[in-house]
Amino acid sequence: MADYMKTLSSRRVFPDVKPGFLRQQLPKEAPQKGESWDTIMDDVDKVLMPGMAHWQSPRWFGYFVTGNAYPSIMGDMLSSVLGGVGFTWYSCPAYTELEMTMTDWLVKMYGLPEEFLHGSGKGGGVIHSGSSEAMFVSVVAARQATVDKYKEMHPELHESDITNKLVAYTSTQAHCCVEKAAKLAGVTIRVIPVDLNFSLPPKSLKRAIKIDKQAGLIPFYVGASLGTTPVCSFDNLREIGNVCKDEDVWFHVDAAYAASALVCPEFKYLIDGVEMVNSFSTNPSKWLLINYDLTVLWVKDKYNLNKSMSVDASYLSQKAKENNAQPVDFRHWTINLGRRFRALKLWFVLRSYGVEGLQKFIRQNVEWAHLFEQKINMDKRFEIVHRVTLGLVPFKLKGDNALNEALAKHINESGKIHLTPSLASGQFVLRLAICNQKCTADIEYAWNVVEEAADELLYQKPRKMLCGPTNNVLVKNGQQHPIEVKE
Amino acid sequence: MADYMKTLSSRRVFPDVKPGFLRQQLPKEAPQKGESWDTIMDDVDKVLMPGMAHWQSPRWFGYFVTGNAYPSIMGDMLSSVLGGVGFTWYSCPAYTELEMTMTDWLVKMYGLPEEFLHGSGKGGGVIHSGSSEAMFVSVVAARQATVDKYKEMHPELHESDITNKLVAYTSTQAHCCVEKAAKLAGVTIRVIPVDLNFSLPPKSLKRAIKIDKQAGLIPFYVGASLGTTPVCSFDNLREIGNVCKDEDVWFHVDAAYAASALVCPEFKYLIDGVEMVNSFSTNPSKWLLINYDLTVLWVKDKYNLNKSMSVDASYLSQKAKENNAQPVDFRHWTINLGRRFRALKLWFVLRSYGVEGLQKFIRQNVEWAHLFEQKINMDKRFEIVHRVTLGLVPFKLKGDNALNEALAKHINESGKIHLTPSLASGQFVLRLAICNQKCTADIEYAWNVVEEAADELLYQKPRKMLCGPTNNVLVKNGQQHPIEVKE
Repeated sequence: MADYMKTLSSRRVFPDVKPGFLRQQLPKEAPQKGESWDTIMDDVDKVLMPGMAHWQSPRWFGYFVTGNAYPSIMGDMLSSVLGGVGFTWYSCPAYTELEMTMTDWLVKMYGLPEEFLHGSGKGGGVIHSGSSEAMFVSVVAARQATVDKYKEMHPELHESDITNKLVAYTSTQAHCCVEKAAKLAGVTIRVIPVDLNFSLPPKSLKRAIKIDKQAGLIPFYVGASLGTTPVCSFDNLREIGNVCKDEDVWFHVDAAYAASALVCPEFKYLIDGVEMVNSFSTNPSKWLLINYDLTVLWVKDKYNLNKSMSVDASYLSQKAKENNAQPVDFRHWTINLGRRFRALKLWFVLRSYGVEGLQKFIRQNVEWAHLFEQKINMDKRFEIVHRVTLGLVPFKLKGDNALNEALAKHINESGKIHLTPSLASGQFVLRLAICNQKCTADIEYAWNVVEEAADELLYQKPRKMLCGPTNNVLVKNGQQHPIEVKE
Repeated sequence: MADYMKTLSSRRVFPDVKPGFLRQQLPKEAPQKGESWDTIMDDVDKVLMPGMAHWQSPRWFGYFVTGNAYPSIMGDMLSSVLGGVGFTWYSCPAYTELEMTMTDWLVKMYGLPEEFLHGSGKGGGVIHSGSSEAMFVSVVAARQATVDKYKEMHPELHESDITNKLVAYTSTQAHCCVEKAAKLAGVTIRVIPVDLNFSLPPKSLKRAIKIDKQAGLIPFYVGASLGTTPVCSFDNLREIGNVCKDEDVWFHVDAAYAASALVCPEFKYLIDGVEMVNSFSTNPSKWLLINYDLTVLWVKDKYNLNKSMSVDASYLSQKAKENNAQPVDFRHWTINLGRRFRALKLWFVLRSYGVEGLQKFIRQNVEWAHLFEQKINMDKRFEIVHRVTLGLVPFKLKGDNALNEALAKHINESGKIHLTPSLASGQFVLRLAICNQKCTADIEYAWNVVEEAADELLYQKPRKMLCGPTNNVLVKNGQQHPIEVKE
């Protein structure tokens, strides 16, 4: 493992393999007799490594990368060794209490609403595996809250009479998991086109809600975004919050990538209006140096969440609702009963780096992003698609989508760096996403690769770069699709 | 970590702490400056360890324990270091192909239907975090299949007209996650009382389905169990499968704990009739020496599953349906987009132990269970609640629930061993769950603790054992509840 970390820079960033490459090499059945550890480790090098995409390479700029600081890796290791499952306070007291404290630390570090603190009375944070799960859970909690509210007003209604009419809202730039959450929860969702800033327009949202209400539907949930996947755009929380407040709709914010920047005071303007949200989710496993998996979901009122996740009738009693002294049982906050001790890696990273260390990391990444942005701006053939706020640079060649698709393909086929393109309001965009502690020299290198690829493509220069396989991957609203590339 | 593993036997198995113990000791905010690794590790010992429940202790017999064989821990470590996220084949080819191969290996090792193999044409297996997630995903896939079927017959129907009428079925001994899955998916569920063998009675199931059909409802899903949490009972797959086939209902089997035993030919009789299932889930992270998290869900037809999990319209085309040559993208098989490289730990464990090594482990555990069963049978004050098939011994004092609640409390308060009681058809049951490679001498020890506790309780002997805090936890149909214990 230490060798792997040391040799990351020298490895081809994306593998040169075709579907089936590994399956063909592996036996069809488990061995009858045990094998030696050396034999197995040999196969890691010989069989597995040729098919690895090296996400942790300083030359990997695809997707939004996961963290893997040493203290985080150590946290995961210790979690494996301890080998408990802390679904209730009683099943492992230390697990639950560290998780409560760590999610509280993040609330204060990021400047999120005090109602998100455990012990605030009604709210709190919980660790999920990923954003999609957190999003689904927030939709289900909002569904529960709305059904309860309507049943109180109209006791004659059946639950399904209400859920049939529920409508959620998000933007075309939001991550696909908002749409997936609504689909899984069996509710309608409207995906509203973004404005020129790639943001959800509050007026369009208001209009959509009004129209739906007039049609007898029940608008119940808005999923806004901070730091979208395609271009890292931001919705205006204050204006959207006002719409949600006026229309009495649950307001969720997905800040999967961007919230980590809130550790720096200069980025706190991005959450102006956050006091109006009902729930908020982010992935420290994206840009806070933490290994996958670790998503935090906070709610201001845990009762709706717990009720929606619980099949334990006794838990739903009014007494339980009022009794805040009872220990938190995270099994009522998540889909799964079991859970790893993920708070450990958060504890280790937050303490090892301290707030100042994390600020330094984030600022360094943002600086690198601006360095690459400058390179783009200095070359008249290119343009920046959306202003660079954090560590993502969305750029393209001036020209049509086919040209940019060809550029992305050419760059990725080289295996020298890895980018994941996206589609933003119909434009094919190349994305340079920076999330690494050690890529100082690699930004310059990345620009040279991009420049060289453009030269080869535009001026038909000899194709020096082309040395790898097809790697046709596209981020479209947060999803990764194989795409057809025309040449 | 090595020290921890070595000292497990000598640690008090359950901590002597009260809610808030850890939160009171930790700062309210993250530190401003980074701290040294030694300081942090000191706190692991001084602050965290006093609140740990030592699940991996050979004297921990609670719940169903998670595995943590060394090769599994190594797999988790390497997964952290590699730090990729393999949600599509393209995002990390090695991740996807190893996962496909490992789930195939399990199919063959367990003797599950060939249609579950990747490359079989339509089916395959996928790794989830936990059983609850796998169960929910199977319900949603079944919901999708049923809605599609009804819409084809009645194109005039709206999707919600169909989902409103869907009914799922399970037994009172099934894990609570079946009920939770139905609740999350917004469908009705009927929980059918078990028979004297703690099994779902096929006749009751058939009758319930008939009645619901007559009432205009749409029975669509049966969740059967192999190895229930309270007493490790087994549903009859062949008889239930016949009902599902006759009534055209999706048949899912939850074998979270028990399927690991299928590595031994002598336990394969438990899945007689398994060829009739549509989907099947199990947790190698329970009894196959694998660390949490690792649940495998297999489906015979991945199309329904993929359609239910996908918001990518292009993926749903008929062409995609027919094109089995395209690489598997596991993002269409799960809720979350991101995923750890969990196939690694399965690969390491299956190869290190081999089929024979795993058989030896399972047989040893079952032997220990029978050893404890003998002790119970030899003491006339006790009785076995349900026959011991695998590694769980459900037992009780002859007497009422209050007596047995008191016994469980007395045993757990000692901190010498840890049991998790359960409720089975109204009876309060003590459970000794064995899942450890190293508890030879500890079975005898456990019996001595149980016997001593009974002596103290029944004959008012001086309470030597009582040296710990309240630890009032109860497994009721797979859930863990704090309970009120009357003395």
